[in-house]
Amino acid sequence: MLTQAKGMVYADYATAAPPAPEVMEAVRRCLEEHYASPSSLHEPGLRARRVLEQAREKVAELVGASAQEIVFTSSGTEANNLAVKGYALANRRRGRHIVVSAVEQYSVLHPLQSLAREGFRITRVGVDRHCRLRLEELENAITEDTILISVQHVNHEVGTVQEIERVAEIAEQAGVALHCDGTCAAGFLRADVAAVADLYSITAHRFYGPKGAGALYIARGTRVLPLIEGGTQEQGYRAGTENLPAIAGMGRAAELAIAERERWLEKLWRLRRSFLRELEGCADFRLNGHPEHVNPLYINVSFPGMSGDALVAELTKLGVHASTGSPCMAQAAKTSHVLEAMGLEPELVRGAVLFSFGIFSSEEEVRRAAQAAGEAAGRLRGGAEG
Amino acid sequence: MLTQAKGMVYADYATAAPPAPEVMEAVRRCLEEHYASPSSLHEPGLRARRVLEQAREKVAELVGASAQEIVFTSSGTEANNLAVKGYALANRRRGRHIVVSAVEQYSVLHPLQSLAREGFRITRVGVDRHCRLRLEELENAITEDTILISVQHVNHEVGTVQEIERVAEIAEQAGVALHCDGTCAAGFLRADVAAVADLYSITAHRFYGPKGAGALYIARGTRVLPLIEGGTQEQGYRAGTENLPAIAGMGRAAELAIAERERWLEKLWRLRRSFLRELEGCADFRLNGHPEHVNPLYINVSFPGMSGDALVAELTKLGVHASTGSPCMAQAAKTSHVLEAMGLEPELVRGAVLFSFGIFSSEEEVRRAAQAAGEAAGRLRGGAEG
Repeated sequence: MLTQAKGMVYADYATAAPPAPEVMEAVRRCLEEHYASPSSLHEPGLRARRVLEQAREKVAELVGASAQEIVFTSSGTEANNLAVKGYALANRRRGRHIVVSAVEQYSVLHPLQSLAREGFRITRVGVDRHCRLRLEELENAITEDTILISVQHVNHEVGTVQEIERVAEIAEQAGVALHCDGTCAAGFLRADVAAVADLYSITAHRFYGPKGAGALYIARGTRVLPLIEGGTQEQGYRAGTENLPAIAGMGRAAELAIAERERWLEKLWRLRRSFLRELEGCADFRLNGHPEHVNPLYINVSFPGMSGDALVAELTKLGVHASTGSPCMAQAAKTSHVLEAMGLEPELVRGAVLFSFGIFSSEEEVRRAAQAAGEAAGRLRGGAEG
Repeated sequence: MLTQAKGMVYADYATAAPPAPEVMEAVRRCLEEHYASPSSLHEPGLRARRVLEQAREKVAELVGASAQEIVFTSSGTEANNLAVKGYALANRRRGRHIVVSAVEQYSVLHPLQSLAREGFRITRVGVDRHCRLRLEELENAITEDTILISVQHVNHEVGTVQEIERVAEIAEQAGVALHCDGTCAAGFLRADVAAVADLYSITAHRFYGPKGAGALYIARGTRVLPLIEGGTQEQGYRAGTENLPAIAGMGRAAELAIAERERWLEKLWRLRRSFLRELEGCADFRLNGHPEHVNPLYINVSFPGMSGDALVAELTKLGVHASTGSPCMAQAAKTSHVLEAMGLEPELVRGAVLFSFGIFSSEEEVRRAAQAAGEAAGRLRGGAEG
């Protein structure tokens, strides 16, 4: 019986992955040994600074940038805010129009709403059924007044990989800066951001780094105003005593990702196939997102005729922990603007559940998750929800 | 011989204190066990949320607030930015004038400079020789257009405790909100902020918590706009996946401070007296700051006729690690705006060094630090610096 299966199955790696043991060790070392501030000029401070700069080099290497182009933040959300608000405010004399995809995270869309209140004009560009940006619509949206395009690398609900090189070409031809939210891509996809975007956001806790660490790649020559002002840390882009334990953990995670990314991706594809194969045998569902151009971490499936929320609640009773739609909006209880923008029928939007596994997941856990999904769907169909 | 003494003496607790062992344990537990996002609705998410809310209760208790009034941030710097910019932008229709003390941290002064560029008017109020705010000058600075007063609880360079209750009275009578930067007070002084300020900033790493955690007390009914937007975390005041390891560590540090604060303070006073007594025997110096109304953590002394930078460099060779003036400006290499505002003679401003000890410091270390200061001063006097 599934309900009696031992241990829980964590199927919410996309929201927060457990940190790797090597990462925990890096955090512990900083707490114990490198407690001095990396901005201090005495010897323990200089040692802390070396740890900081080593982490910066690893994160830079992960995304194909140089270390001086990496600014550490406290999260991917902060990196997105810094990119969008910081760029817009630093460049507002050049123009006040920003183009964005309709399927960005709230950490991009909400800062843009604030900018709209400050006199900026925002144009949202639509996506197709697979969540891929309509490039012609993007081209047509650019005006003389456009200063910034913001398009994510990988979608945060369905995992679709955008054609970011083509977006970059369009931005370059128009002479417009490109921000790419890479928080669902970095650590998974090979990204030579230096060749692609002017600004690129990263978060650590998705690729087995700790919470509390993110980064923004700022290409040389790109003007950005800081959100958090005070001391001269992070080249003046981000004030405050550096969170060295989290940053060192992020550096270690980047190092692991550089070495293991190919193997990790292979495993994620394998688990994805097992999950879908098992689910096919026990439930009626639709797979959302692009069939090929996808970060395999994101397995977003819709169960027609039922509520994703109810299904997730039923699943958690069975010891399987997944999420509905976007992790950041779980508490907001809204419907998914991503699935709506993709043109999904309302019942498929309502019935969506996001399963995500990782390097610590086993084949058996993944099969159990799929079986539990089948069982939960069956219960709901039998009950009031059916 | 001092130069051959075993081990280093860390005399820079004011910049960054080592986390307490209990704090490290709380961080470790979160990394290992509570990796789910506290915003997730599944069971591991709800467990993580309980850890988050327990930490919030402890931090609230530390400053005499209720848990709903505490917003976690990534640092004291971010808390100060959120307070000043968030309040000003949310209330700009009511007025565009802000009054601030001349001796605030850069994390208050620099956001105010940005606000000045957005059309706000800023008035700086002076301090006396002991760094205490001139209250009459404060009263006279307030106009019809004033919406906010920002005065620190404890100064970050000399440790002077401001008469914050009297500042609060003045603010209340004028109908103006009060932000109090408590990042150098919380965990040391008893603060019933709920009775005193509308906004109160806290940082964890000064009272043996981890880096990467701060908080802002926002009194019920106080309007503040978020700096970092996106998801609905922290009641919408601060978006982004919560940095649970650091927050749990901050909660544990708050718990320790509540229980141990009196004992900690007693020890700091004792170490301070030992340090000054020892230093009196071996160097010519002036003690900066208020003689009584002071957080004893801050031992700021000027060595006439020499450079504080040179003295700190000499000290670090002797294995004693102190700092010059403000930790946040170490890399900026500016002179102290605090000591200048206090009216210190230029040679005393130039010759200032900040020594700070903590609960892990021993009497012997403190005496060694004083002896090393004497030796370093002697060397400088003998050499080119003399």
